[in-house]
Amino acid sequence: MADERNDSKIVNISRRNFLKGMGVVTAAAALSTGGFGLLSKADAQEAPTWPFPYKKLDPEAIMPVAYEGYFKGGCAYGAFSAIMEGLRKEVGYPFTVIPNEIVKWGEGGGAGWGTLCGALLGAATAINLVTDAKGYSAVINDLIGWYTQFPFPAYKPANPRADISVTSVSGSPLCHVSVSKWCAAAKAKIADTARKERCGRLTADVAAQAVRLLNSYHSGTFVAAFKPSDTFNGCMSCHGASAMNNAMGKMDCVPCHEPHN
Amino acid sequence: MADERNDSKIVNISRRNFLKGMGVVTAAAALSTGGFGLLSKADAQEAPTWPFPYKKLDPEAIMPVAYEGYFKGGCAYGAFSAIMEGLRKEVGYPFTVIPNEIVKWGEGGGAGWGTLCGALLGAATAINLVTDAKGYSAVINDLIGWYTQFPFPAYKPANPRADISVTSVSGSPLCHVSVSKWCAAAKAKIADTARKERCGRLTADVAAQAVRLLNSYHSGTFVAAFKPSDTFNGCMSCHGASAMNNAMGKMDCVPCHEPHN
Repeated sequence: MADERNDSKIVNISRRNFLKGMGVVTAAAALSTGGFGLLSKADAQEAPTWPFPYKKLDPEAIMPVAYEGYFKGGCAYGAFSAIMEGLRKEVGYPFTVIPNEIVKWGEGGGAGWGTLCGALLGAATAINLVTDAKGYSAVINDLIGWYTQFPFPAYKPANPRADISVTSVSGSPLCHVSVSKWCAAAKAKIADTARKERCGRLTADVAAQAVRLLNSYHSGTFVAAFKPSDTFNGCMSCHGASAMNNAMGKMDCVPCHEPHN
Repeated sequence: MADERNDSKIVNISRRNFLKGMGVVTAAAALSTGGFGLLSKADAQEAPTWPFPYKKLDPEAIMPVAYEGYFKGGCAYGAFSAIMEGLRKEVGYPFTVIPNEIVKWGEGGGAGWGTLCGALLGAATAINLVTDAKGYSAVINDLIGWYTQFPFPAYKPANPRADISVTSVSGSPLCHVSVSKWCAAAKAKIADTARKERCGRLTADVAAQAVRLLNSYHSGTFVAAFKPSDTFNGCMSCHGASAMNNAMGKMDCVPCHEPHN
């Protein structure tokens, strides 16, 4: 579609010569049919049909874009813009009308509050754009579950901002937990370049995993891999939907709550 | 206004060359008035300039839309779509090209994980669309802080799904904490209609507060009202940026961590 956009430019250019000396009636008729690469204002101003069409992306190609995007606009922007840029190349419109900046606030777990990891927020927003409710629920659930168990970071950038080698498993989708745990493991401070390097690489890892899951989902081969822990299942046997039904969510309980009988 | 911009592009890009040498009085008149109502595909397919233009909205008018939106598409969708619908009426394009569904996954604290409250996620995404980075950081920070201290719900719908009267203060922006605390206070289960009614009303409260903050921000009268608690400040005097710098975020510490000296 990006090609089509260029095509429309070609049409515009060739039209100049084409119309030289033509009668107005013919030209006006051609315009009214959209034959010269034009859209009616009504079409251009309406929301594109959701979900948007997906085409398979290369996770390896997404990672450096997400990593650089992190340093340009934060974790949520990095993950979202990398997937969107991929889809703009492969599909074009309607991905072209969504500004990458729409998720920037997700940085630092939501305006720095340390809630949901911004890389997850950015990737989830992209997933939501290209799957229906059944699809995004399954894919995002698996992405978040994977995140809680993955030893971040894995991506090795060609031009790192800092040399880091420590990895850590967050056990949680919360930025607060994920960042603080890595800092403890790496003996780093939040403000260190090393910590930012870790989050930049993590952004690449999350965007790539989102693309892997989307590729499998849209090719009909997706199988959910995440399984909640035994401790979580134990807690939910009382607090879950089939019993007390008084604990909302899927985050592991024991990092914040004392286990009890 | 974006119409004007696009109209002028049509006139500038197309008319000049297109009409050269033609018997063009009729066509020129039609084009200069935008009478063909056309945009070039290239214009229509480009992302609108961010941030989008904001116009003052009525928080009272937003609330019933957000409440009904909750029952249609969840908490994130309810808050986001209510603000977007308001801006589509007041401004039109470019709000018209962003599908309301883009934030649906935020429901239940992010695909049901119980992280950031979806109403906050939806409202924050709308705020991000209409403010630059300095603006959305300040406004969203104040919205999240307000959320942690507000006795939800306050909104009284004209046609409630359930009669509820209990309110609770979450002390946290996390869906898990916010919902579980209200259920404990109301002696309700997560799956109860009463709990959904509470989250529907909360969605209205959050969307209205977001609009109040945006109205004041864009009229130059915004003053941040949220102040972190003394306990949080106490924790951060050691764990914050000026000392150990090893705790990410702004969430209160003591609900999950034992206070210590």
